[in-house]
Amino acid sequence: MQVVVSDYIPTNMTSDLPVLLAAVSILSALHLTFQARRVGWSRMKHKIMPPTVTGPPEFERTFRAHQNGVELYSIFLVVLWISGIFCNEVLAALGGLLYIVGREIYFTGYIHESKKRLPGFYLVLCALFFLTVVATIGIIQSFLDKYLNNGLL
Amino acid sequence: MQVVVSDYIPTNMTSDLPVLLAAVSILSALHLTFQARRVGWSRMKHKIMPPTVTGPPEFERTFRAHQNGVELYSIFLVVLWISGIFCNEVLAALGGLLYIVGREIYFTGYIHESKKRLPGFYLVLCALFFLTVVATIGIIQSFLDKYLNNGLL
Amino acid sequence: MQVVVSDYIPTNMTSDLPVLLAAVSILSALHLTFQARRVGWSRMKHKIMPPTVTGPPEFERTFRAHQNGVELYSIFLVVLWISGIFCNEVLAALGGLLYIVGREIYFTGYIHESKKRLPGFYLVLCALFFLTVVATIGIIQSFLDKYLNNGLL
Repeated sequence: MQVVVSDYIPTNMTSDLPVLLAAVSILSALHLTFQARRVGWSRMKHKIMPPTVTGPPEFERTFRAHQNGVELYSIFLVVLWISGIFCNEVLAALGGLLYIVGREIYFTGYIHESKKRLPGFYLVLCALFFLTVVATIGIIQSFLDKYLNNGLL
Repeated sequence: MQVVVSDYIPTNMTSDLPVLLAAVSILSALHLTFQARRVGWSRMKHKIMPPTVTGPPEFERTFRAHQNGVELYSIFLVVLWISGIFCNEVLAALGGLLYIVGREIYFTGYIHESKKRLPGFYLVLCALFFLTVVATIGIIQSFLDKYLNNGLL
Repeated sequence: MQVVVSDYIPTNMTSDLPVLLAAVSILSALHLTFQARRVGWSRMKHKIMPPTVTGPPEFERTFRAHQNGVELYSIFLVVLWISGIFCNEVLAALGGLLYIVGREIYFTGYIHESKKRLPGFYLVLCALFFLTVVATIGIIQSFLDKYLNNGLL
Protein backbone atom coordinates (compact mmCIF):
# COMPACT_ATOMS: atom_id res chain seq x y z
CA MET A 1 0.00 0.00 0.00
CA GLN A 2 1.35 3.35 -0.95
CA VAL A 3 1.29 5.99 1.72
CA VAL A 4 1.02 9.48 0.32
CA VAL A 5 2.95 11.70 2.61
CA SER A 6 2.77 14.94 0.70
CA ASP A 7 0.56 16.46 3.35
CA TYR A 8 2.54 15.07 6.19
CA ILE A 9 5.47 17.37 6.50
CA PRO A 10 5.13 17.51 10.28
CA THR A 11 6.39 21.02 10.44
CA ASN A 12 6.06 23.60 7.73
CA MET A 13 9.73 23.86 6.83
CA THR A 14 9.46 27.32 5.30
CA SER A 15 7.92 28.74 8.45
CA ASP A 16 10.65 27.20 10.57
CA LEU A 17 13.29 29.42 9.02
CA PRO A 18 14.92 31.70 11.63
CA VAL A 19 13.26 34.84 10.33
CA LEU A 20 14.06 36.97 13.41
CA LEU A 21 17.77 36.19 13.09
CA ALA A 22 17.61 37.00 9.39
CA ALA A 23 15.86 40.31 10.03
CA VAL A 24 18.39 41.35 12.69
CA SER A 25 21.26 40.29 10.40
CA ILE A 26 19.96 42.39 7.50
CA LEU A 27 19.44 45.33 9.86
CA SER A 28 23.00 45.02 11.20
CA ALA A 29 24.38 44.77 7.66
CA LEU A 30 22.49 47.90 6.59
CA HIS A 31 23.70 49.70 9.71
CA LEU A 32 27.34 48.82 9.07
CA THR A 33 26.92 49.94 5.44
CA PHE A 34 25.49 53.26 6.66
CA GLN A 35 28.55 53.69 8.91
CA ALA A 36 30.77 53.17 5.83
CA ARG A 37 28.71 55.83 4.06
CA ARG A 38 29.39 58.26 6.89
CA VAL A 39 33.12 57.62 6.52
CA GLY A 40 32.66 58.61 2.87
CA TRP A 41 30.87 61.82 3.89
CA SER A 42 33.72 62.53 6.34
CA ARG A 43 36.22 62.10 3.48
CA MET A 44 34.34 64.69 1.43
CA LYS A 45 34.02 67.07 4.40
CA HIS A 46 37.73 66.95 5.23
CA LYS A 47 38.85 66.44 1.61
CA ILE A 48 40.67 63.17 2.29
CA MET A 49 40.85 61.24 -0.97
CA PRO A 50 41.23 57.43 -1.07
CA PRO A 51 43.51 55.60 -0.42
CA THR A 52 44.61 57.99 2.34
CA VAL A 53 43.26 57.07 5.78
CA THR A 54 44.95 59.73 7.90
CA GLY A 55 44.04 63.37 8.33
CA PRO A 56 42.22 65.67 10.75
CA PRO A 57 41.36 64.02 14.10
CA GLU A 58 37.61 63.95 13.38
CA PHE A 59 38.16 62.02 10.14
CA GLU A 60 40.52 59.54 11.81
CA ARG A 61 38.02 58.94 14.62
CA THR A 62 35.20 58.38 12.09
CA PHE A 63 37.39 55.99 10.10
CA ARG A 64 38.41 54.00 13.18
CA ALA A 65 34.84 53.92 14.49
CA HIS A 66 33.76 52.15 11.29
CA GLN A 67 36.82 49.86 11.33
CA ASN A 68 36.02 48.74 14.86
CA GLY A 69 32.55 47.81 13.62
CA VAL A 70 34.10 45.78 10.81
CA GLU A 71 36.52 44.06 13.20
CA LEU A 72 33.70 42.81 15.45
CA TYR A 73 31.02 42.15 12.82
CA SER A 74 31.88 38.54 11.97
CA ILE A 75 32.19 37.73 15.67
CA PHE A 76 28.74 39.24 16.19
CA LEU A 77 27.23 37.15 13.37
CA VAL A 78 28.74 33.96 14.81
CA VAL A 79 27.34 34.45 18.32
CA LEU A 80 24.00 35.79 16.99
CA TRP A 81 23.27 32.79 14.78
CA ILE A 82 24.62 30.10 17.08
CA SER A 83 22.67 31.47 20.07
CA GLY A 84 19.55 31.71 17.89
CA ILE A 85 19.79 28.28 16.26
CA PHE A 86 21.08 26.30 19.22
CA CYS A 87 19.26 27.99 22.08
CA ASN A 88 16.56 30.62 21.61
CA GLU A 89 15.82 32.74 18.56
CA VAL A 90 13.99 35.54 20.40
CA LEU A 91 16.75 36.00 23.00
CA ALA A 92 19.33 36.04 20.21
CA ALA A 93 17.39 38.61 18.21
CA LEU A 94 17.07 40.86 21.28
CA GLY A 95 20.82 40.55 21.90
CA GLY A 96 21.39 41.42 18.27
CA LEU A 97 19.27 44.56 18.50
CA LEU A 98 21.18 45.59 21.64
CA TYR A 99 24.43 45.15 19.69
CA ILE A 100 23.21 47.40 16.87
CA VAL A 101 22.14 50.10 19.33
CA GLY A 102 25.53 49.86 21.06
CA ARG A 103 27.32 50.15 17.72
CA GLU A 104 25.42 53.37 16.89
CA ILE A 105 26.10 54.93 20.31
CA TYR A 106 29.77 53.95 19.90
CA PHE A 107 30.02 55.46 16.42
CA THR A 108 28.35 58.79 17.17
CA GLY A 109 30.25 59.12 20.44
CA TYR A 110 33.63 58.36 18.85
CA ILE A 111 33.15 60.98 16.12
CA HIS A 112 32.85 63.71 18.73
CA GLU A 113 35.61 62.54 21.07
CA SER A 114 37.61 59.34 21.61
CA LYS A 115 36.45 58.96 25.22
CA LYS A 116 32.80 59.23 24.17
CA ARG A 117 33.10 55.92 22.34
CA LEU A 118 33.25 54.05 25.69
CA PRO A 119 29.54 53.88 26.68
CA GLY A 120 28.67 52.37 23.28
CA PHE A 121 31.71 50.10 23.51
CA TYR A 122 30.58 48.67 26.86
CA LEU A 123 27.04 48.18 25.52
CA VAL A 124 28.45 46.30 22.51
CA LEU A 125 30.55 44.13 24.86
CA CYS A 126 27.48 43.38 27.02
CA ALA A 127 25.51 42.33 23.94
CA LEU A 128 28.34 40.09 22.68
CA PHE A 129 28.83 38.58 26.15
CA PHE A 130 25.10 37.87 26.44
CA LEU A 131 24.97 36.25 23.00
CA THR A 132 28.09 34.19 23.75
CA VAL A 133 26.56 32.88 26.99
CA VAL A 134 23.28 31.98 25.24
CA ALA A 135 25.22 30.32 22.40
CA THR A 136 27.34 28.31 24.84
CA ILE A 137 24.24 27.13 26.73
CA GLY A 138 22.77 26.04 23.41
CA ILE A 139 25.92 24.17 22.40
CA ILE A 140 26.10 22.34 25.73
CA GLN A 141 22.41 21.41 25.43
CA SER A 142 23.01 20.02 21.94
CA PHE A 143 26.07 18.03 23.05
CA LEU A 144 24.08 16.42 25.87
CA ASP A 145 21.09 15.85 23.61
CA LYS A 146 23.22 14.30 20.87
CA TYR A 147 25.44 12.06 22.97
CA LEU A 148 23.36 11.44 26.08
CA ASN A 149 20.13 10.66 24.22
CA ASN A 150 21.82 8.34 21.75
CA GLY A 151 23.56 6.55 24.59
CA LEU A 152 20.27 5.88 26.33
CA LEU A 153 18.57 4.45 23.21
CA MET B 1 -5.40 5.63 7.02
CA GLN B 2 -3.40 8.41 8.55
CA VAL B 3 0.28 7.76 9.14
CA VAL B 4 1.83 9.87 11.82
CA VAL B 5 5.26 10.80 10.62
CA SER B 6 6.10 13.45 13.13
CA ASP B 7 9.66 12.22 13.43
CA TYR B 8 10.26 11.83 9.72
CA ILE B 9 11.14 14.42 7.14
CA PRO B 10 9.98 13.00 3.77
CA THR B 11 12.59 14.54 1.49
CA ASN B 12 16.17 13.56 0.90
CA MET B 13 17.79 16.26 2.97
CA THR B 14 21.30 15.99 1.49
CA SER B 15 20.08 17.07 -1.94
CA ASP B 16 18.30 20.03 -0.43
CA LEU B 17 21.53 21.68 0.68
CA PRO B 18 22.03 25.13 -0.92
CA VAL B 19 24.85 24.02 -3.16
CA LEU B 20 24.78 27.11 -5.41
CA LEU B 21 25.17 29.43 -2.42
CA ALA B 22 28.02 27.27 -1.15
CA ALA B 23 29.77 27.34 -4.52
CA VAL B 24 29.47 31.13 -4.83
CA SER B 25 30.68 31.53 -1.23
CA ILE B 26 33.78 29.41 -1.83
CA LEU B 27 34.45 31.31 -5.06
CA SER B 28 34.15 34.66 -3.27
CA ALA B 29 36.43 33.44 -0.47
CA LEU B 30 39.07 32.29 -2.97
CA HIS B 31 38.78 35.60 -4.80
CA LEU B 32 39.28 37.65 -1.63
CA THR B 33 42.26 35.44 -0.73
CA PHE B 34 43.73 36.09 -4.19
CA GLN B 35 43.35 39.83 -3.60
CA ALA B 36 45.31 39.44 -0.35
CA ARG B 37 47.97 37.59 -2.34
CA ARG B 38 48.23 40.52 -4.72
CA VAL B 39 48.79 42.85 -1.77
CA GLY B 40 51.68 40.56 -0.81
CA TRP B 41 53.10 40.80 -4.34
CA SER B 42 52.76 44.59 -4.16
CA ARG B 43 54.72 44.56 -0.88
CA MET B 44 57.53 42.64 -2.57
CA LYS B 45 57.46 44.92 -5.63
CA HIS B 46 57.66 48.13 -3.58
CA LYS B 47 59.73 46.59 -0.77
CA ILE B 48 57.20 47.41 1.97
CA MET B 49 57.77 45.00 4.81
CA PRO B 50 55.03 44.13 7.33
CA PRO B 51 53.72 45.67 9.56
CA THR B 52 54.10 48.87 7.50
CA VAL B 53 50.99 49.73 5.44
CA THR B 54 52.08 53.03 3.93
CA GLY B 55 54.38 53.64 0.99
CA PRO B 56 54.27 54.45 -2.72
CA PRO B 57 50.78 55.40 -3.98
CA GLU B 58 50.36 52.18 -6.00
CA PHE B 59 50.99 50.04 -2.90
CA GLU B 60 48.58 52.11 -0.77
CA ARG B 61 45.87 51.80 -3.43
CA THR B 62 46.41 48.01 -3.65
CA PHE B 63 46.27 47.73 0.14
CA ARG B 64 43.08 49.80 0.42
CA ALA B 65 41.46 47.95 -2.49
CA HIS B 66 41.84 44.69 -0.54
CA GLN B 67 40.74 46.31 2.73
CA ASN B 68 37.55 47.56 1.10
CA GLY B 69 36.85 43.97 0.03
CA VAL B 70 37.35 42.81 3.61
CA GLU B 71 35.10 45.57 4.97
CA LEU B 72 32.18 44.51 2.77
CA TYR B 73 32.70 40.74 2.75
CA SER B 74 30.66 39.81 5.82
CA ILE B 75 27.84 42.08 4.65
CA PHE B 76 27.94 40.28 1.30
CA LEU B 77 27.75 36.85 2.95
CA VAL B 78 24.76 37.93 5.06
CA VAL B 79 22.68 39.19 2.11
CA LEU B 80 23.81 36.30 -0.14
CA TRP B 81 22.72 33.54 2.23
CA ILE B 82 19.56 35.18 3.52
CA SER B 83 18.36 35.96 -0.01
CA GLY B 84 19.20 32.41 -1.08
CA ILE B 85 17.65 30.58 1.88
CA PHE B 86 14.59 32.80 2.39
CA CYS B 87 13.74 33.69 -1.21
CA ASN B 88 15.46 32.17 -4.23
CA GLU B 89 18.77 30.37 -4.42
CA VAL B 90 19.39 30.94 -8.14
CA LEU B 91 18.73 34.69 -7.92
CA ALA B 92 21.03 34.91 -4.90
CA ALA B 93 23.80 32.99 -6.63
CA LEU B 94 23.56 35.27 -9.68
CA GLY B 95 23.74 38.33 -7.41
CA GLY B 96 26.75 36.77 -5.74
CA LEU B 97 28.55 36.25 -9.04
CA LEU B 98 27.82 39.87 -9.99
CA TYR B 99 29.37 40.95 -6.67
CA ILE B 100 32.56 38.97 -7.34
CA VAL B 101 32.87 40.45 -10.83
CA GLY B 102 32.35 43.95 -9.38
CA ARG B 103 35.00 43.30 -6.74
CA GLU B 104 37.55 42.32 -9.41
CA ILE B 105 36.80 45.35 -11.59
CA TYR B 106 37.09 47.53 -8.46
CA PHE B 107 40.42 46.01 -7.45
CA THR B 108 42.13 46.18 -10.83
CA GLY B 109 40.78 49.70 -11.43
CA TYR B 110 41.89 50.98 -8.03
CA ILE B 111 45.47 49.70 -8.49
CA HIS B 112 45.88 51.87 -11.59
CA GLU B 113 44.15 55.01 -10.30
CA SER B 114 41.82 55.91 -7.44
CA LYS B 115 39.06 57.15 -9.75
CA LYS B 116 39.13 53.88 -11.73
CA ARG B 117 37.78 52.05 -8.69
CA LEU B 118 34.36 53.67 -9.17
CA PRO B 119 32.84 51.49 -11.95
CA GLY B 120 33.56 48.34 -9.95
CA PHE B 121 32.36 50.07 -6.79
CA TYR B 122 28.98 50.87 -8.34
CA LEU B 123 28.65 47.31 -9.67
CA VAL B 124 29.37 45.98 -6.16
CA LEU B 125 26.74 48.34 -4.73
CA CYS B 126 24.18 47.18 -7.34
CA ALA B 127 24.85 43.54 -6.47
CA LEU B 128 24.53 44.21 -2.72
CA PHE B 129 21.36 46.27 -3.25
CA PHE B 130 19.85 43.49 -5.38
CA LEU B 131 20.69 40.83 -2.79
CA THR B 132 19.33 42.99 0.03
CA VAL B 133 16.02 43.48 -1.81
CA VAL B 134 15.71 39.73 -2.51
CA ALA B 135 16.60 38.95 1.11
CA THR B 136 14.03 41.44 2.42
CA ILE B 137 11.31 39.97 0.18
CA GLY B 138 12.19 36.53 1.54
CA ILE B 139 12.07 37.69 5.14
CA ILE B 140 8.67 39.37 4.65
CA GLN B 141 7.35 36.19 2.97
CA SER B 142 8.56 34.10 5.90
CA PHE B 143 7.03 36.44 8.48
CA LEU B 144 3.65 36.26 6.72
CA ASP B 145 3.96 32.51 6.25
CA LYS B 146 4.89 31.92 9.88
CA TYR B 147 2.38 34.17 11.56
CA LEU B 148 -0.46 34.38 9.03
CA ASN B 149 -0.61 30.64 8.26
CA ASN B 150 -0.49 29.63 11.89
CA GLY B 151 -3.32 32.04 12.60
CA LEU B 152 -5.51 30.46 9.91
CA LEU B 153 -4.99 26.84 11.10
CA MET C 1 1.27 -2.20 9.43
CA GLN C 2 4.87 -1.29 9.00
CA VAL C 3 5.81 1.68 6.84
CA VAL C 4 9.33 1.50 5.50
CA VAL C 5 10.80 4.91 5.78
CA SER C 6 14.36 4.31 4.67
CA ASP C 7 14.34 7.52 2.65
CA TYR C 8 13.26 9.48 5.63
CA ILE C 9 15.59 10.91 8.22
CA PRO C 10 14.42 9.11 11.36
CA THR C 11 16.37 11.17 13.84
CA ASN C 12 15.44 13.92 16.17
CA MET C 13 16.36 17.09 14.26
CA THR C 14 17.69 18.98 17.29
CA SER C 15 20.46 16.45 17.72
CA ASP C 16 21.39 16.89 14.07
CA LEU C 17 22.57 20.44 14.63
CA PRO C 18 26.28 20.84 13.74
CA VAL C 19 27.40 21.22 17.33
CA LEU C 20 31.11 20.66 16.59
CA LEU C 21 31.13 23.46 14.01
CA ALA C 22 29.32 25.72 16.45
CA ALA C 23 31.79 24.96 19.24
CA VAL C 24 34.80 25.64 16.98
CA SER C 25 33.16 28.85 15.72
CA ILE C 26 32.57 30.15 19.25
CA LEU C 27 36.14 29.22 20.18
CA SER C 28 37.54 31.06 17.15
CA ALA C 29 35.37 34.11 17.92
CA LEU C 30 36.58 34.19 21.54
CA HIS C 31 40.17 33.80 20.34
CA LEU C 32 39.89 36.70 17.89
CA THR C 33 38.30 38.81 20.64
CA PHE C 34 41.22 37.97 22.93
CA GLN C 35 43.63 39.11 20.22
CA ALA C 36 41.74 42.44 20.07
CA ARG C 37 42.13 42.64 23.85
CA ARG C 38 45.88 42.21 23.50
CA VAL C 39 45.97 45.09 21.03
CA GLY C 40 44.26 47.16 23.73
CA TRP C 41 46.91 46.12 26.27
CA SER C 42 49.61 47.06 23.76
CA ARG C 43 47.97 50.51 23.38
CA MET C 44 48.16 51.00 27.15
CA LYS C 45 51.75 49.73 27.31
CA HIS C 46 52.99 52.03 24.55
CA LYS C 47 50.54 54.85 25.37
CA ILE C 48 48.96 54.90 21.91
CA MET C 49 45.49 56.37 22.26
CA PRO C 50 42.71 55.66 19.73
CA PRO C 51 42.23 56.48 16.89
CA THR C 52 46.02 56.40 16.29
CA VAL C 53 47.26 53.10 14.85
CA THR C 54 50.94 53.92 14.37
CA GLY C 55 53.69 54.00 16.96
CA PRO C 56 56.55 51.88 18.26
CA PRO C 57 57.31 48.80 16.11
CA GLU C 58 56.00 46.33 18.72
CA PHE C 59 52.62 48.09 18.83
CA GLU C 60 52.37 48.22 15.03
CA ARG C 61 53.17 44.48 14.78
CA THR C 62 50.55 43.67 17.43
CA PHE C 63 47.99 45.81 15.63
CA ARG C 64 48.71 44.22 12.23
CA ALA C 65 48.72 40.71 13.72
CA HIS C 66 45.15 41.24 14.90
CA GLN C 67 44.13 42.90 11.61
CA ASN C 68 45.40 39.92 9.63
CA GLY C 69 43.17 37.73 11.80
CA VAL C 70 40.20 39.96 11.03
CA GLU C 71 40.99 39.90 7.29
CA LEU C 72 40.91 36.11 7.13
CA TYR C 73 38.17 35.41 9.68
CA SER C 74 35.14 35.53 7.37
CA ILE C 75 36.98 33.38 4.83
CA PHE C 76 37.68 30.88 7.63
CA LEU C 77 34.02 30.77 8.66
CA VAL C 78 32.92 30.18 5.06
CA VAL C 79 35.23 27.20 4.47
CA LEU C 80 34.65 25.82 7.99
CA TRP C 81 30.87 25.69 7.72
CA ILE C 82 30.65 24.60 4.10
CA SER C 83 33.16 21.78 4.63
CA GLY C 84 31.28 20.73 7.78
CA ILE C 85 27.75 20.89 6.35
CA PHE C 86 28.47 19.57 2.87
CA CYS C 87 31.17 17.01 3.58
CA ASN C 88 32.24 15.98 7.07
CA GLU C 89 31.69 17.80 10.34
CA VAL C 90 34.53 16.13 12.26
CA LEU C 91 37.11 16.86 9.55
CA ALA C 92 35.92 20.46 9.39
CA ALA C 93 36.10 20.89 13.15
CA LEU C 94 39.66 19.50 13.19
CA GLY C 95 40.63 21.91 10.40
CA GLY C 96 39.07 24.70 12.40
CA LEU C 97 41.07 23.85 15.50
CA LEU C 98 44.25 23.77 13.39
CA TYR C 99 43.37 27.25 12.12
CA ILE C 100 42.96 28.62 15.65
CA VAL C 101 46.31 27.13 16.73
CA GLY C 102 47.96 28.65 13.64
CA ARG C 103 46.41 32.03 14.40
CA GLU C 104 47.83 31.99 17.93
CA ILE C 105 51.32 30.97 16.79
CA TYR C 106 51.13 33.72 14.13
CA PHE C 107 50.07 36.37 16.65
CA THR C 108 52.64 35.61 19.34
CA GLY C 109 55.40 35.24 16.73
CA TYR C 110 54.54 38.53 15.00
CA ILE C 111 54.61 40.51 18.27
CA HIS C 112 58.24 39.53 18.82
CA GLU C 113 59.47 39.93 15.23
CA SER C 114 57.88 40.23 11.78
CA LYS C 115 59.66 37.13 10.44
CA LYS C 116 58.41 35.05 13.37
CA ARG C 117 54.85 35.38 12.06
CA LEU C 118 55.64 33.02 9.16
CA PRO C 119 55.37 29.57 10.84
CA GLY C 120 51.90 30.45 12.14
CA PHE C 121 51.03 31.99 8.78
CA TYR C 122 51.88 28.78 6.92
CA LEU C 123 49.91 26.71 9.45
CA VAL C 124 46.89 29.00 8.93
CA LEU C 125 47.24 28.62 5.15
CA CYS C 126 47.41 24.82 5.49
CA ALA C 127 44.25 24.79 7.59
CA LEU C 128 42.41 27.03 5.13
CA PHE C 129 43.61 24.96 2.17
CA PHE C 130 42.48 21.74 3.88
CA LEU C 131 39.05 23.19 4.68
CA THR C 132 38.68 24.54 1.14
CA VAL C 133 39.47 21.13 -0.35
CA VAL C 134 36.99 19.37 1.98
CA ALA C 135 34.36 22.04 1.19
CA THR C 136 34.90 21.65 -2.56
CA ILE C 137 34.58 17.86 -2.32
CA GLY C 138 31.33 18.34 -0.43
CA ILE C 139 29.97 20.80 -2.99
CA ILE C 140 30.81 18.48 -5.90
CA GLN C 141 29.14 15.56 -4.06
CA SER C 142 26.01 17.66 -3.53
CA PHE C 143 25.89 18.77 -7.18
CA LEU C 144 26.10 15.15 -8.35
CA ASP C 145 23.59 14.03 -5.72
CA LYS C 146 21.15 16.78 -6.60
CA TYR C 147 21.29 16.62 -10.38
CA LEU C 148 22.39 13.05 -11.08
CA ASN C 149 20.00 11.39 -8.63
CA ASN C 150 17.03 13.41 -9.82
CA GLY C 151 17.88 12.50 -13.40
CA LEU C 152 17.84 8.78 -12.63
CA LEU C 153 14.47 8.84 -10.84
